Amino acid sequence: MSIKSAVVLFSGGLDSTTVLAWALREGYACYALSFDYGQRHRQELDCAREIAAAFGVVRHAVVEFDLKQFGGSALTDEIEVPKSKSAEGIGTDIPVTYVPARNTIFLSFALAWAETLQITEIFIGVNAMDYSGYPDCRPAFIHAFEQMANLATKAGVQEFKPFRIQAPLMHLGKAEIIRLGTSLGVDYGQTMSCYDPIADGRPCGQCDACWLRAKGFSEAGVVDPLASSESVITRR
Amino acid sequence: MSIKSAVVLFSGGLDSTTVLAWALREGYACYALSFDYGQRHRQELDCAREIAAAFGVVRHAVVEFDLKQFGGSALTDEIEVPKSKSAEGIGTDIPVTYVPARNTIFLSFALAWAETLQITEIFIGVNAMDYSGYPDCRPAFIHAFEQMANLATKAGVQEFKPFRIQAPLMHLGKAEIIRLGTSLGVDYGQTMSCYDPIADGRPCGQCDACWLRAKGFSEAGVVDPLASSESVITRR
Repeated sequence: MSIKSAVVLFSGGLDSTTVLAWALREGYACYALSFDYGQRHRQELDCAREIAAAFGVVRHAVVEFDLKQFGGSALTDEIEVPKSKSAEGIGTDIPVTYVPARNTIFLSFALAWAETLQITEIFIGVNAMDYSGYPDCRPAFIHAFEQMANLATKAGVQEFKPFRIQAPLMHLGKAEIIRLGTSLGVDYGQTMSCYDPIADGRPCGQCDACWLRAKGFSEAGVVDPLASSESVITRR
Repeated sequence: MSIKSAVVLFSGGLDSTTVLAWALREGYACYALSFDYGQRHRQELDCAREIAAAFGVVRHAVVEFDLKQFGGSALTDEIEVPKSKSAEGIGTDIPVTYVPARNTIFLSFALAWAETLQITEIFIGVNAMDYSGYPDCRPAFIHAFEQMANLATKAGVQEFKPFRIQAPLMHLGKAEIIRLGTSLGVDYGQTMSCYDPIADGRPCGQCDACWLRAKGFSEAGVVDPLASSESVITRR
């Protein structure tokens, strides 16, 4: 593939939408990749489809598999998503919303698609600042995955350019991510962060993801378009 | 989990069936994991189900996803499986039956299940001797995956025992694998190796997998139960 292209892991959330906007601004033709894996907050896929279409990606693929059959996470199992009264303490321990090996699985599919398309660049929206403390969001993991990827594939034995796992948000706080996305024209009203949305799709306002999002918008001095609507966040 | 347990990647083929028999003989309670990924030789899953039941694994899970949507391999796409007249040259180049990042994806799901079950041992039947030349069958890949796995998971940040990717067949030739399996009581008549079985499920006798299998049985001085039946292999 001669034009500059990238596979972008894309959940429809705040972080991955910012990464997608960033990659497009950098001139990449983007192949967005989402997963329908039995997540509680499956509505994020509707957001992903709308944003992918609005952004004009080359292709948006949704891979389906069922992580519910393994369980072990509040996002895929009959375990309650923890709610709290503030952002205090988030990221200090690995919470029950951690999905075992999720980013490893997501990156593995991205690698498969990238190798098929002969694309070397893979983008992921992880960050290790304002995050939930998941082990597969840390720089050491991303680096180890990249090394493994280059041994797993034809790149490892033939003369291809190596794969690169790009995580441009890794060292940004949530407020910086929001400022970056805003400067790129992202409409955060289209994104979804909540782990446990209420029946009509509005965010719960009390899970880790909602708190990190609210804290980020507050620190960025930007109004969250979701909060300015009829969402629960406005009433917390 | 206090008893000795393992997640075993298990396709229903000759190699992974030998690994499963080996792990059971070593005293592991085995969780067998297969994949329905859009493979051309989907009949291998019927073999896997029968063998898993006969061996008395704790659980046999089949994860479904569609790698056809990515394509790029003769095993998942409209690309013909190459046929040849001998085993000459197999493994010297990466053939079109290579499925991009397949073992990375398989091991990622094994890691997810193992972490959920709090099992540290993951078995895979790769070998780098009589093989098709796939990059994700080599020791360097297995080692890199293991390192990545221990950074991807709670094991990387908490005081868990690290994950181990065990590939007991890595340095065995196909004949040695067959002798090992025979000594463990494996009925190879239940297994399936062919990449491109003919309509009634019999092996084609001419793909790489059939040739490597035939060569292995011949060198081991053992009769392949599949070849002694009405299979095409007997008529090559």
